[in-house]
Amino acid sequence: MSQSPLNRAQIEQLVRQSLARVVGPSANGPSQSQGPNPLVVNISARHCHLSQESVETLFGKGHTLTPKKDLYMDGQYAAQESVTLIGPRSRIISNLRILGPCRDFDQVELASTDAISLGFKIPTRNSGDIEGTPGCMLMGPAGFLKMDKGVIRAAPHVHMHPDDAAYYGVENKTFMKLRVGGDLGVTFDRIFVRVDPSFKLEVHIDTDEGNACGFTQQTPCELIK
Amino acid sequence: MSQSPLNRAQIEQLVRQSLARVVGPSANGPSQSQGPNPLVVNISARHCHLSQESVETLFGKGHTLTPKKDLYMDGQYAAQESVTLIGPRSRIISNLRILGPCRDFDQVELASTDAISLGFKIPTRNSGDIEGTPGCMLMGPAGFLKMDKGVIRAAPHVHMHPDDAAYYGVENKTFMKLRVGGDLGVTFDRIFVRVDPSFKLEVHIDTDEGNACGFTQQTPCELIK
Repeated sequence: MSQSPLNRAQIEQLVRQSLARVVGPSANGPSQSQGPNPLVVNISARHCHLSQESVETLFGKGHTLTPKKDLYMDGQYAAQESVTLIGPRSRIISNLRILGPCRDFDQVELASTDAISLGFKIPTRNSGDIEGTPGCMLMGPAGFLKMDKGVIRAAPHVHMHPDDAAYYGVENKTFMKLRVGGDLGVTFDRIFVRVDPSFKLEVHIDTDEGNACGFTQQTPCELIK
Repeated sequence: MSQSPLNRAQIEQLVRQSLARVVGPSANGPSQSQGPNPLVVNISARHCHLSQESVETLFGKGHTLTPKKDLYMDGQYAAQESVTLIGPRSRIISNLRILGPCRDFDQVELASTDAISLGFKIPTRNSGDIEGTPGCMLMGPAGFLKMDKGVIRAAPHVHMHPDDAAYYGVENKTFMKLRVGGDLGVTFDRIFVRVDPSFKLEVHIDTDEGNACGFTQQTPCELIK
């Protein structure tokens, strides 16, 4: 897996910050953070996390995921492998991306729009909190995987280092706000805060949330308590 | 077309207000408005407005729309008739609802998710402001209609009577905010204000915006300047 020193989002953030210093923050938008780390906001398209055992069920004995693209969070990647999701009414979503590395549980993260198109209701949960959630069937080239639970809409959240938490004055497992500027400006009032020394400062919203505010990597964003 | 004295949204609003008086406003949500009129928020699913001439092109000479369901705004209705939208890459959306009565122009209102699934980009506009927007093809049982322009994402907006504008302290063609409570609380910071003596107080957001905040008719909402 290739590791470039700066990924595209980081470079764009640096360019924006340089521009903001020269021309001032954009007229419509909130100002850029002066915090210890650049604020990166990324839209998570629908995806799944799988255990190694489930990968082998779907792709064959001994199969391991092949990284295709590094994510912003160190060590995380989009795999070359994808699966077909079969919903409760036999409607399907093709090419559901697998994110690696493997975890010790199976979880599918969809936007509400995806769930509606599949014809079922899914709860909003934090990643890993999957007790009592609906299941689904996954199909891979080597077989089917019946998930009894684990289909969720991921609550919007921010990953951050303890230094960021100190800067913003927030604690792990609390909520803060993300103000998104532009013509379709929206403030997400309930961004769940996850603090860990291994985390880079990154907000994850889903495609519905991103579409609602017309988010692009040029849209000014601000985290506020 | 039947006209009940109170529609479902109004009844639910009255029930919520009565409950709020008895049990207090819900814990997570903003308080209910004390304004001159109940605040109604409705999600606009994708739809189109057509001229009478276009209705006849699609459904046959002399055809007029048949109202199926009254909308909250007096005189507006969802028609029984729907059309098939054919996008620029020959991808389609079936059963695109027509809203009546006819207007003097053709306009298709999609959510961003719809536009992405069709494979094209559409601008965010206020209704009627369609110069320079993409077109599409519509298909009905009697023929095709080539629209050279008119496919938009409608900007989130609120209709209100001058009494409401006075209460909220806002003017026509300005912006105000809609705070949506609940676990996925979101504040829409740019709700376009449209004031007219014929308007009832009603916010229109699209399906992406509604999904982003998990909106239901039970979700507490508040308009703020």
